[in-house]
Amino acid sequence: MATRKEVADRAGVSVAVVSYVLNNRTIVKEETRRKVQDAIRELGYRPNLTARSLKTKKTQQVAVLTHYIGNPFEAGLLLQIEATAKQHGYFVFVQTYEPDREEELRSMLMGRVDGILLLGQSFGEETLGYFDDLQVPVVSAMKPAAWDADGSNPIPYVDIDWLPAMRSLVSHLRQRGHEKIAFMTAKESQLNYAVRHQAFLEAMRLEGLELQEDGHLDGSGRFEQAQAVLGELLDAEGKGGTAAEFTAIVCANDLMAAGCLAACRERGVPVPQDIAVAGCENILMSSQTWPPLTVIHYPRQAAGEMAMNMLLDRMNGIKTESILLSGSLIVRAST
Amino acid sequence: MATRKEVADRAGVSVAVVSYVLNNRTIVKEETRRKVQDAIRELGYRPNLTARSLKTKKTQQVAVLTHYIGNPFEAGLLLQIEATAKQHGYFVFVQTYEPDREEELRSMLMGRVDGILLLGQSFGEETLGYFDDLQVPVVSAMKPAAWDADGSNPIPYVDIDWLPAMRSLVSHLRQRGHEKIAFMTAKESQLNYAVRHQAFLEAMRLEGLELQEDGHLDGSGRFEQAQAVLGELLDAEGKGGTAAEFTAIVCANDLMAAGCLAACRERGVPVPQDIAVAGCENILMSSQTWPPLTVIHYPRQAAGEMAMNMLLDRMNGIKTESILLSGSLIVRAST
Repeated sequence: MATRKEVADRAGVSVAVVSYVLNNRTIVKEETRRKVQDAIRELGYRPNLTARSLKTKKTQQVAVLTHYIGNPFEAGLLLQIEATAKQHGYFVFVQTYEPDREEELRSMLMGRVDGILLLGQSFGEETLGYFDDLQVPVVSAMKPAAWDADGSNPIPYVDIDWLPAMRSLVSHLRQRGHEKIAFMTAKESQLNYAVRHQAFLEAMRLEGLELQEDGHLDGSGRFEQAQAVLGELLDAEGKGGTAAEFTAIVCANDLMAAGCLAACRERGVPVPQDIAVAGCENILMSSQTWPPLTVIHYPRQAAGEMAMNMLLDRMNGIKTESILLSGSLIVRAST
Repeated sequence: MATRKEVADRAGVSVAVVSYVLNNRTIVKEETRRKVQDAIRELGYRPNLTARSLKTKKTQQVAVLTHYIGNPFEAGLLLQIEATAKQHGYFVFVQTYEPDREEELRSMLMGRVDGILLLGQSFGEETLGYFDDLQVPVVSAMKPAAWDADGSNPIPYVDIDWLPAMRSLVSHLRQRGHEKIAFMTAKESQLNYAVRHQAFLEAMRLEGLELQEDGHLDGSGRFEQAQAVLGELLDAEGKGGTAAEFTAIVCANDLMAAGCLAACRERGVPVPQDIAVAGCENILMSSQTWPPLTVIHYPRQAAGEMAMNMLLDRMNGIKTESILLSGSLIVRAST
């Protein structure tokens, strides 16, 4: 079995350069990389990656914890995160996060990753301390929900600045004559929507609007749930024909907004005349529904890339601050 | 530092059971798992996973190679693959596959994974031989394109039986009066669509229809490309107002079909009156476009789960055969 030194000699480079190539570092010129790869092939050299990572204590692996990659918004973030990680020679693990299994997650990830990228999950204090001890940095694409009333959460993040974005949406709805506006979210399964919910409530207050009694809907973050929940309300009898007191719904993600549209369409409830519907992400689907959806545009490509770069910085000991991007309102026919 | 034996003693179980828990095997009862995890925490035991995997020569990791997880169809497959892998204590790597970088891929994955799951990519002979030598099995969700004219490709796969599915679609279009039917695919970037393309051509032949000269469109697998390519054809002047000779388009994926709808909508070309459009996957979006899309339904949940189980079988030395599922035609307003 050839050694790394023999590979270096044959390629006419130093052992360090061979290591760079094996670690897939982009600083190596293409021509040099080719020479080293030729030498590796000719000599049949097989680096034992597992043994190597034991020595350097680096795995070149990062974990991305998803909620539900069936949501194209998450898949889009993941796409960008993976592309950025790959550029820097890192592999991306994908794991669906389950809040009640953090203990298991800790033992599964230990020794396996150099960093963890959350998609807005709010790790408990114990879990954060655990990875801190292991010197495995944790950052989040999308701001995690605060732990307590003072709004603190030590996880650095990339997100959009939700309050101005929500305010422009609520203000737009008010201008179209809507004063009774409901908010649909995922109460249990996706805590990071609490950040969007909070911004919505504050935007309503700033616009001088009050939330109705029935103004909080739980669509579980999914198209099907949203469709069922709004459908039930529309079918129930109330003063104005249905039990729904609101005339507009803002949804914490676009999948739920599309589900609301479907519920209205099935029942012949005209959108936006009877109910206006808006989303918060601007996935591709939202421009193709009938009617197309008014949304807050979330720049997910930039957010995914920045979050991964923030994690890479932290893994290299560079402390970067959280980043707030601008969301923008896209008005389409659903409002 | 506590040893595994000490953990076992404290939990009142055998060392093997501790190993099962650490390897995340589901055969351990919940109560026992809890005892072992308590002992691990109380003793501060830290298994070195990297060292352990060196000893067992297993990484408990599998790679999934994607084309473009911006396509909800791929994301849906991935979701199911990851869930199935997790149930068996495996971690899933996600890597975007680039056909011209197989050499790099080989050195990146070596020593890192116990198995590789393709999403229809057609590994070269050298790459397949390489992983065969390493005893890393390769299976595919979606049939990879054949290497040569005799239709051979040694990678076992799960896919739908495309010919009957395509025939039911072409037959439906013919019944609606369409004889000039085009096919939109991704010529370079996604070779597995060649399987769908081939089935379409054979279905046309069986239905007694001939493909037009302009009947092959390259939409690169993406919404935006499909929209641009069809848009250009509709804008170019031909005999009947546009240069498009066909009256119906079948797209190799739903994203392209949605892009075709958008191109028609922008130009006021009525669908299905002037052009009928159909897709091949049945992603959620396809039921929400205007008009909603006629599609072949691809049972992606079952396919993702079966493909992962097939890979697990192969990793355990069990040779399973390729599996063909049934696709079904869903007729909506776009045809």
